Amino acid sequence: MIDITLPDGSVKTFEKNVTPMDVAKSISEGFARNVISANFNGTTLETASPLTTDGDLILYTWNNDEGKTAFWHSSAHVLAQAIEVLYPNAKLTIGPAIENGFYYDVDFGEQTISEKDFKAIENKMLEIARGKHDFNMRPVTKAEALSLYKDNPFKTELIENLEDGTITFCDHDTFTDLCRGGHIPNTGIIKAVKVLSVAGAYWRGNEKNPQLTRVYGISFPKQKDLTEYLEMLEEAKKRDHRKLGKELELFTFSKKVGQGLPLWLPKGAALRERLENFLKAAQKKAGYEMVITPHIGQKELYVTSGHYAKYGEDSFQPIKTPKEDEEFLLKPMNCPHHCEIYNSSQWSYKDLPKRYAEFGTVYRYEQSGELHGLTRVRGFTQDDAHLFCMPEQLDKEFKDVIDLVLYVFGSLGFENFTAQVSVRDPENPDKYIGDVKNWEKAEQAIINAATDKGLDFVIETGEAAFYGPKLDFMVKDALGRRWQLGTIQVDYNLPERFDLTYKGSDNELHRPVMIHRAPFGSMERFIALLLEHTGGNFPLWLMPTQVIILSISEKFEKYSEKVLNLLENDEIRALVDHRNETIGKKIREAEMQKHPYMIIIGEQEEQENKITVRQHGGKDLGMISVEDFSIIIKNEIKKTLKPF
Amino acid sequence: MIDITLPDGSVKTFEKNVTPMDVAKSISEGFARNVISANFNGTTLETASPLTTDGDLILYTWNNDEGKTAFWHSSAHVLAQAIEVLYPNAKLTIGPAIENGFYYDVDFGEQTISEKDFKAIENKMLEIARGKHDFNMRPVTKAEALSLYKDNPFKTELIENLEDGTITFCDHDTFTDLCRGGHIPNTGIIKAVKVLSVAGAYWRGNEKNPQLTRVYGISFPKQKDLTEYLEMLEEAKKRDHRKLGKELELFTFSKKVGQGLPLWLPKGAALRERLENFLKAAQKKAGYEMVITPHIGQKELYVTSGHYAKYGEDSFQPIKTPKEDEEFLLKPMNCPHHCEIYNSSQWSYKDLPKRYAEFGTVYRYEQSGELHGLTRVRGFTQDDAHLFCMPEQLDKEFKDVIDLVLYVFGSLGFENFTAQVSVRDPENPDKYIGDVKNWEKAEQAIINAATDKGLDFVIETGEAAFYGPKLDFMVKDALGRRWQLGTIQVDYNLPERFDLTYKGSDNELHRPVMIHRAPFGSMERFIALLLEHTGGNFPLWLMPTQVIILSISEKFEKYSEKVLNLLENDEIRALVDHRNETIGKKIREAEMQKHPYMIIIGEQEEQENKITVRQHGGKDLGMISVEDFSIIIKNEIKKTLKPF
Repeated sequence: MIDITLPDGSVKTFEKNVTPMDVAKSISEGFARNVISANFNGTTLETASPLTTDGDLILYTWNNDEGKTAFWHSSAHVLAQAIEVLYPNAKLTIGPAIENGFYYDVDFGEQTISEKDFKAIENKMLEIARGKHDFNMRPVTKAEALSLYKDNPFKTELIENLEDGTITFCDHDTFTDLCRGGHIPNTGIIKAVKVLSVAGAYWRGNEKNPQLTRVYGISFPKQKDLTEYLEMLEEAKKRDHRKLGKELELFTFSKKVGQGLPLWLPKGAALRERLENFLKAAQKKAGYEMVITPHIGQKELYVTSGHYAKYGEDSFQPIKTPKEDEEFLLKPMNCPHHCEIYNSSQWSYKDLPKRYAEFGTVYRYEQSGELHGLTRVRGFTQDDAHLFCMPEQLDKEFKDVIDLVLYVFGSLGFENFTAQVSVRDPENPDKYIGDVKNWEKAEQAIINAATDKGLDFVIETGEAAFYGPKLDFMVKDALGRRWQLGTIQVDYNLPERFDLTYKGSDNELHRPVMIHRAPFGSMERFIALLLEHTGGNFPLWLMPTQVIILSISEKFEKYSEKVLNLLENDEIRALVDHRNETIGKKIREAEMQKHPYMIIIGEQEEQENKITVRQHGGKDLGMISVEDFSIIIKNEIKKTLKPF
Repeated sequence: MIDITLPDGSVKTFEKNVTPMDVAKSISEGFARNVISANFNGTTLETASPLTTDGDLILYTWNNDEGKTAFWHSSAHVLAQAIEVLYPNAKLTIGPAIENGFYYDVDFGEQTISEKDFKAIENKMLEIARGKHDFNMRPVTKAEALSLYKDNPFKTELIENLEDGTITFCDHDTFTDLCRGGHIPNTGIIKAVKVLSVAGAYWRGNEKNPQLTRVYGISFPKQKDLTEYLEMLEEAKKRDHRKLGKELELFTFSKKVGQGLPLWLPKGAALRERLENFLKAAQKKAGYEMVITPHIGQKELYVTSGHYAKYGEDSFQPIKTPKEDEEFLLKPMNCPHHCEIYNSSQWSYKDLPKRYAEFGTVYRYEQSGELHGLTRVRGFTQDDAHLFCMPEQLDKEFKDVIDLVLYVFGSLGFENFTAQVSVRDPENPDKYIGDVKNWEKAEQAIINAATDKGLDFVIETGEAAFYGPKLDFMVKDALGRRWQLGTIQVDYNLPERFDLTYKGSDNELHRPVMIHRAPFGSMERFIALLLEHTGGNFPLWLMPTQVIILSISEKFEKYSEKVLNLLENDEIRALVDHRNETIGKKIREAEMQKHPYMIIIGEQEEQENKITVRQHGGKDLGMISVEDFSIIIKNEIKKTLKPF
């Protein structure tokens, strides 16, 4: 008999060689029908694998990330089998599950495959799936393994690197693959498959190796899930911030200026300014002070801070000057400058905390292949702040920062977010600097604050930075995609390195603690997310242009200007489209530009001293007075933008 | 007989060998008493020099810059004589007039002189001056000249480099100096002298040469002028922006960050933001659009713009990256980026002008010896804008820019300014690029605009940039010192280099004209000037803190907060000094911080629901209601800050 411990801590006794599926059934038949993968004592395994010792068992369904991984890993086997059948000369290499689906890298030899071949592959995959073939793991000797793959140099290379006695194969139907395991019970639960795309990929990611074809696919237990996923992909394409950024004339890139260096066009700059002003106002209330620091510093500054050791070699290189011993670096972070501002005075405990904020533009070199719109750039502006406080103030300061972050998310319509507390790995104490007591205090402060604020958070052991623990926020956008956003980090390192002090009530010098924080993360990344989340239909308070006034002809220019003035007096951001174009064209363009409200002005409007209002998306608000319209706008803004 | 033409164009006939002083007397005895120097056919000469040909004569008094130069040049001779008498072993080198006074570089050998010696030198100078000695020029042969200076290697070196037949000496009293001329009639009009300071200086400015002592002095025709000048110097010291910047906690420098790279402290950053917002508001009304561009660009961008050729070698060197062929430069100017923004769309004549503005931080390497507070830095933020217009729009655009610049000066209390129009040198047409017709149009546009706007301007031939003519503004600060400030430049070069176009009404592509402009010049330099001009007492609208609330004891904290809220609701920037300090100390510190208004709150104020108001400088406004105080503030602001 063996003892199986379940995640809720309950222990059940079974006969030796019980399978995870048996255990699932012992819980409930209904639950067992959904179980597709398992983990025993930390190792992923099949639901039919016999368990031979005591241990911890976790059972996964499609609703767990681990369940999805098993599902997609198994689907990759099916894809490989379909390819082997349809392309007998193809040589298989590796085929893992990924975040959304799976891929298989294949050497198709002389053949090429393209979108027109996808349907045949999908059909073959579904045919195999319908066979309800079990996945069976079996150990093989190195010699057996090499013999099966004698014509496949890729698999041979993989096997050569494995130790005899640890090699396993997985069989299903007529297909066998070198595999470490982690499959669903049988192919029959794969009900929907889609080959998404093909791309070139080098064997083992090295451009000196032969080029392979990477076939991307995704699969689901229900046809409906696939349909929804494909709709989401379609919607995501429409909301791609690079596409919207162009359509809304927010930003552009120039080959001459350089890749990854966005140029903010007038409408984008106005949007950024509005976001910055919004955060500035909240920060002011929270007792922050704005500072401005240069975008470079002497190389020595970053040697002191440790950034040169971290960013030095792979990033923008030091800037030499006509004077040999003077070298500068583009700043990869704002913290060293803020430490120097702190250090420009001797503070007393009465002066703390000091909270320095800056929209600081930093520069980090990224490989050109990694650049992507505004989400991965070489220059970006952090909504940065550094709080310098006494250790006993950390608790309150941390909570206040969480409040600020939550306020920011709420005002921008992100209801759906989770948090992660990253703490030390207690088994590797040497990885971290600073006093153990301070670490304990800081970790506890973060966990207390997160609990207190009712955050939905997980604790990740070993994920802390070497200089302190941190709290990261992940938001889910309108399409359910997760984005890593704001961060709050505790730092004991820089206060040491910059010898920061304050005079305590005991008249002695003490070391302050630093908090780094950025609710947006960076203006670039945040605006990209906001674009993809809202599809460009930002909250009204944020829209650079809230109202566009379209005159039916030049005759109404004067009245249009009058309406514009009335709105501007009410601090509503409005524009007039005076162009000599048809009203139809003006409306179409205003829709395209996502202006939330259009005012149409013609003969009747002027005569009755009113305006005709149309909402973005086509809803007609009829003919109303400017005053009434103004109230509508103000009420809509009040609903999302509350004072901090 | 010879014909002498005077500056007003009148021609007078005199006998040959008439002197400038004779001509002056022929105009009026009173005028002649003030004449101290002259210029004949472009050459400076003494008022006693005989004129032997027809020519143009200008007569200078102390009120002309040229008159002052002659006065101080002559005073340098007197200083040299005094030194020769008092320090017989001293070797004289050179001694020119400078902007404010004169200096003489002297090799004192083993001796050193310091402040305690100044009085003796001054006394000796005044004694010589009272002798009313004429300055007499005489030609000498190279041999004679060398013989006089056989013991002086410095003068010997100077003479060696002169051509025989061109060498002149100047005698007065018992003293002779190698000199090209340009003196006042006699030493007697030097009524007041002051030795200001001594400093080290290398012979001919080369640090490989022997070190000399530079003796600085100044002199005046009236004792009163000297007194006023010394008072001004005293005041200037108090208003030194480096001193005020520290006292008012506006900015700091850090050795670790690097020289010439200001760190803006909270109060300075707030001041900057206020100035920026002020200009932004005016620019918005004037149809400008804000953009944001990175602080670096590929090296190629600046090769295209021509900036690399201009700034390349002496400035911050290219930033290398891990990829060999990718090099970047810190931007020395914003124009290339704005050209690329313009180039991101195809514009039609209907879209022009485009007016892109950015508070763009640029970096230029300056020798460390040239750095000075905020006026000479290595990184500074230009209040930059580039206007792209059709040639036929240039006239109006230029006038509109002047209006904006005048509005900026007016709102900041600079009443006293002059302008300079810099045009081509018609004798060097090759120095300039672009079409001659466009140049003529542009120069005429600038001159028309300056005339139209009633500017007090001079035209400087040959001072145009190679790419276009320009208009520069010089303001006089409260101490009468001139500062070069805002600039407006026309540019035909960058539109060519960046191949900028717009589609005209003829459907053909045309080249736009660019205007560069910066009313402040740079935020750093402007704030330095503003500090020295106002001594830190900025116009009320600009003060980061307009009112400070000082509570007599902690008992009144709550009422103080209430007053603060009332003021903030009225958009008055106020702070509360809650510290547990005496009211006396709080008032002193508030005075030091130049807060324009102090509110003092104690028992009586709280009881009567009023506040006691005290103006910076000590004026008492008595006990009034918050509402009345609010009106006082608003009226004061309205007086200087009018809407654009």
